[in-house]
Amino acid sequence: MRNTLEWLAREVAGRIDRECAFSERATEIGMGADGTPTCRIDKVAEDLILQLMDERKVPLNVLSEEAGLIDRGYDRTLVLDPVDGTYNSLMGIPLYSVSMAVCTRSMNDATHGIVRNLVTGDTFYAEKGKGATWNDRPIHVRRCERDGSVLFVYLGKYSAATANGVLRKARRTRSLGCSSLEMCLVAAGLADGFYLHSEVYQRALRVVDIAASALVLREAGGEVYDLAGNVLDMDLDLKVRANCLAVGDRAVLGWVL
Amino acid sequence: MRNTLEWLAREVAGRIDRECAFSERATEIGMGADGTPTCRIDKVAEDLILQLMDERKVPLNVLSEEAGLIDRGYDRTLVLDPVDGTYNSLMGIPLYSVSMAVCTRSMNDATHGIVRNLVTGDTFYAEKGKGATWNDRPIHVRRCERDGSVLFVYLGKYSAATANGVLRKARRTRSLGCSSLEMCLVAAGLADGFYLHSEVYQRALRVVDIAASALVLREAGGEVYDLAGNVLDMDLDLKVRANCLAVGDRAVLGWVL
Repeated sequence: MRNTLEWLAREVAGRIDRECAFSERATEIGMGADGTPTCRIDKVAEDLILQLMDERKVPLNVLSEEAGLIDRGYDRTLVLDPVDGTYNSLMGIPLYSVSMAVCTRSMNDATHGIVRNLVTGDTFYAEKGKGATWNDRPIHVRRCERDGSVLFVYLGKYSAATANGVLRKARRTRSLGCSSLEMCLVAAGLADGFYLHSEVYQRALRVVDIAASALVLREAGGEVYDLAGNVLDMDLDLKVRANCLAVGDRAVLGWVL
Repeated sequence: MRNTLEWLAREVAGRIDRECAFSERATEIGMGADGTPTCRIDKVAEDLILQLMDERKVPLNVLSEEAGLIDRGYDRTLVLDPVDGTYNSLMGIPLYSVSMAVCTRSMNDATHGIVRNLVTGDTFYAEKGKGATWNDRPIHVRRCERDGSVLFVYLGKYSAATANGVLRKARRTRSLGCSSLEMCLVAAGLADGFYLHSEVYQRALRVVDIAASALVLREAGGEVYDLAGNVLDMDLDLKVRANCLAVGDRAVLGWVL
């Protein structure tokens, strides 16, 4: 399975620039299964992965941002975000990724997860019970020293007022617009948390956004919580949205929530 | 001059990974002329540029983050930030740049400016009166439609309360931690503004941070203001700090300030 996921991620990364020029990426070409507009880059990446899976007869169903659930007759499902950070890809910000996890019933039974930055090639990978890696090197979360803490915070028109409060709690804050990569940097011990609180349900996270990075983070020693402090799980359903706080060190919950 | 600046930027980008391994970048190795700690990556990049300038006898003084003013006996000065976005470089975030402008007395007499992303190689360049380019293609700011607006906002422990207010004024917000690249994305018409308001003077911008990107932005049709709405100029002095709002479309001032 690892080889398959790495191959799919590599192929998408290698072909996306060729098959979808920068100037064409933003074109909206319809409405996705998740109820948000589909940009051309999302569709091109998704189509490419579905085509590759057919060619190699990869034995997985697919749940994806644009296509929804494709029941290909298997037990397990590839939970796929073909481009996480779509808007970054339209803005020339080199922070967007393909994110894939293999799940059966919900996010938390994921067995394999991969997140690959489509610009730099940086690849985060995890297998249940086998730890997490960044470009094949093992990664671990760090203990959080609040004086040197770094938080990623989702911000914008729809972020809740609590997000503004969280901003000043950390030593440094970034808002990068790519939840999968932000969570992987927490997993790698380079940051301490990722906080997302949208006051609009349709802007909160979907399972396709975080299934892979949640496994990477957990295998690196961290955890993903809802904003009540409970471990977050999500059904394999694009209609379900969630807010979250993902941390490397559980102590972060105490001063953020 | 253009060839010289492009050559310096390319050399730094090509050598920085080799001469400063990821695990060594964060090592603090002293205090810079600007009063903030110097990380090893800053020093390595600065030393490299100074050495290259000596070898090629580049006819410029240097004002740089770590070394301060080096009077090499010329009229004009290279206003240099060897690594803008140092902390990103320590965190695995591919948003850090070398930033260089050629000035005589202050930021606003800059004749040449270059900003190069040290990971992706994306290069923004401008010459006074000759326009701005991104990887050699002309760039221009865009008209701002507030419904689709994107603002970059400096955030963190030291950002002023006004920054929190600005966050929700735009459709999308990012906080990338690299002012030079954030301003260049405004110049390229991919975002609408960059807002920095630090309540601590020592965290506001220095001339080395923005001299190059200010020229790029102005040559692309935008402008950099102080927070009273006046065009910003800065002396060639590391002790001087400023808050700013850089915009592509002057209309942004009306709803941000």
